[in-house]
Amino acid sequence: MLAAVKKSESVKPKTSNVILLVETMNRIESLKKIAFDKDKIEGSLVLNSANLTWLTGFCGASALLIPRNGENIVFVHGVNYAQAEAELSGFVVDLVKHGENMMGKIAKQSSALKIKRLSVDVLDVESWRALSKLLGSKKTLEVDNSFLRELRKVKDENEIMRMRKAGELTSEGMRVAGEIIAAGVKEYEVAAEIEYAMRKLGSSGTAFETIVASGLSSAFPHGGCSDKKIREGDLVIVDVGATYKFYRSDMTRTFVVRKPSEKQKKIYEIVRAAQKKAVETMKTNTKAKDVDAAARKVITDAHYEEYFVHSLGHGVGLEIHEPPNLSPDSKDVLAAGNVLTVEPGIYLVGYGGIRIEDTVVVQKKGVEKLTKGLYALTKE
Amino acid sequence: MLAAVKKSESVKPKTSNVILLVETMNRIESLKKIAFDKDKIEGSLVLNSANLTWLTGFCGASALLIPRNGENIVFVHGVNYAQAEAELSGFVVDLVKHGENMMGKIAKQSSALKIKRLSVDVLDVESWRALSKLLGSKKTLEVDNSFLRELRKVKDENEIMRMRKAGELTSEGMRVAGEIIAAGVKEYEVAAEIEYAMRKLGSSGTAFETIVASGLSSAFPHGGCSDKKIREGDLVIVDVGATYKFYRSDMTRTFVVRKPSEKQKKIYEIVRAAQKKAVETMKTNTKAKDVDAAARKVITDAHYEEYFVHSLGHGVGLEIHEPPNLSPDSKDVLAAGNVLTVEPGIYLVGYGGIRIEDTVVVQKKGVEKLTKGLYALTKE
Repeated sequence: MLAAVKKSESVKPKTSNVILLVETMNRIESLKKIAFDKDKIEGSLVLNSANLTWLTGFCGASALLIPRNGENIVFVHGVNYAQAEAELSGFVVDLVKHGENMMGKIAKQSSALKIKRLSVDVLDVESWRALSKLLGSKKTLEVDNSFLRELRKVKDENEIMRMRKAGELTSEGMRVAGEIIAAGVKEYEVAAEIEYAMRKLGSSGTAFETIVASGLSSAFPHGGCSDKKIREGDLVIVDVGATYKFYRSDMTRTFVVRKPSEKQKKIYEIVRAAQKKAVETMKTNTKAKDVDAAARKVITDAHYEEYFVHSLGHGVGLEIHEPPNLSPDSKDVLAAGNVLTVEPGIYLVGYGGIRIEDTVVVQKKGVEKLTKGLYALTKE
Repeated sequence: MLAAVKKSESVKPKTSNVILLVETMNRIESLKKIAFDKDKIEGSLVLNSANLTWLTGFCGASALLIPRNGENIVFVHGVNYAQAEAELSGFVVDLVKHGENMMGKIAKQSSALKIKRLSVDVLDVESWRALSKLLGSKKTLEVDNSFLRELRKVKDENEIMRMRKAGELTSEGMRVAGEIIAAGVKEYEVAAEIEYAMRKLGSSGTAFETIVASGLSSAFPHGGCSDKKIREGDLVIVDVGATYKFYRSDMTRTFVVRKPSEKQKKIYEIVRAAQKKAVETMKTNTKAKDVDAAARKVITDAHYEEYFVHSLGHGVGLEIHEPPNLSPDSKDVLAAGNVLTVEPGIYLVGYGGIRIEDTVVVQKKGVEKLTKGLYALTKE
């Protein structure tokens, strides 16, 4: 604890990090404003890694302690300490050494900062018990991730810029998929070419495990990516995402090699109409479940409702699945800055499946698509 | 619950899945043997996704309920249900529909199976409270992941075969890195080529985010992968892993473009000697902390101990970090079938870093390396 107090004297923003510093300090202030006024919370402990990245701009932190009064403390293990010292501005950096108990250090700092009521974003039962014990009987530890979930739902301009770039990289990967899919090509070979194209353009990795599911596997929303060869007439679902400066993207297209059948064309048109309808209904203050319902109605009217086996979409950002949710039982209401996937699908077991997905951002003046192009079942 | 009971009547192993079925059933029996004899546990609930994959062979399960008596129930959401029905053998598959509360379904099944004392592998505080409430005051819910962690520490022949393949793919990726690293090439371009090579050979994706850290960034164990160009004389740390059939691998090499300096050569030799020493000490029944100490002693003797800022290594398998741990405070004792990384490093802030890492499996007759080759600082 002494080390941290000492270090706090030398905390100065480094010029190159000023923008990041302003961004993260604003976020911490927003969190304090909504979290600390309620229930007399005097300190907030952050352990979830996406929350940590969002609040510090650094991806090597193990914990962050935000007191009502006093400096914010980032706990870092040895492996990331030098990088934290170089990259983090505006935080006290507290090194967790080999054999040191991080929860013990957090409890000590909480005592020193006179935090009697501490809130933590996420914690497993065992760690919660351990930390509660360390804090002692006179202090309360409450688990509440709702504030950070609410704040992270609304992306700021900087975040949207990064997600726009992630969307561009993803759309380019999909363009490559459209080019190389052909009879005789293996599913995982398609994945290799997509990922390579995105990486070469600056993606820092896939946002999730790429799906290339052909033929009967396309009926499984998470199937495919085997060494199976794509055949003429197969439906091929490609679901892929790039990552740019920690922010993810998500996009699906369905292809058919050569000439699609009438049935394939018909199902494709239903899914496409459902997606269009959903996007049309996405406005600020719209209930998320109403967007799901709008897409689901198009599919229901076409008598395929039982084959649309998942939610319409999910929030995307630092994590591939985060709030808000576009599902029948969602309690979310859309707001400007929400970034979501819109991905209706119809899956016929023993036949094949079709899904069309874009990542979109809700803006005051309407919806902006972050992933684009290739709205056609065939590849010409 | 009725649906699940009905479905249980038709549970038959599918021929293609017989090997997987035997494997997963053996694992479940092992778990029951060690977990159920203790504390009168009558049922085990599994929620961690790696544990679920290990026990079911399927990666789309949301939960698994293993009762002392009765059939094992896999809970699956709509999006994965058809695939579960097609791929899972020997389990009752219980669909969690839109709007249904999975914890509620689990509590009901537990009651029907007369489970009074339920153990769960991992659970956050909020879910633990919710499930405890649903189970009612007469039933106990205990959180304990130790049994599954212990079991998963020892890999069987099938798992080692997969990890051997993951290691081969990784070594091939590293060979490509050695070939293309040159002055003027960007860090992320190297990552792109490595990942592409591994993918084309059958890797199902990176085991973790690839690190290519050159120059000053190489002093940060988790630095790099930017659009910075590699320069002549730079130390370049490359840390990469392939994944094969869910199993991961992990390997690091450090390169210098053109002629290394005397200091670079000296540090490289220390790190290499530390790694060799560690591998020599790795035998069944050796304490993990003694292996860390053996490597650390080599570095300490060379007066670089304060620059070896992390543990010597970690277990690898379905997850990139899993038990056992090679660290100064590890309580693990090595056993045949343990798969671990051995990765000493020396990091000089303002200068650069050197790390050498292999994934190895402890065998009865000694250590087998799963990643291989390129033990030289220069690339010639």
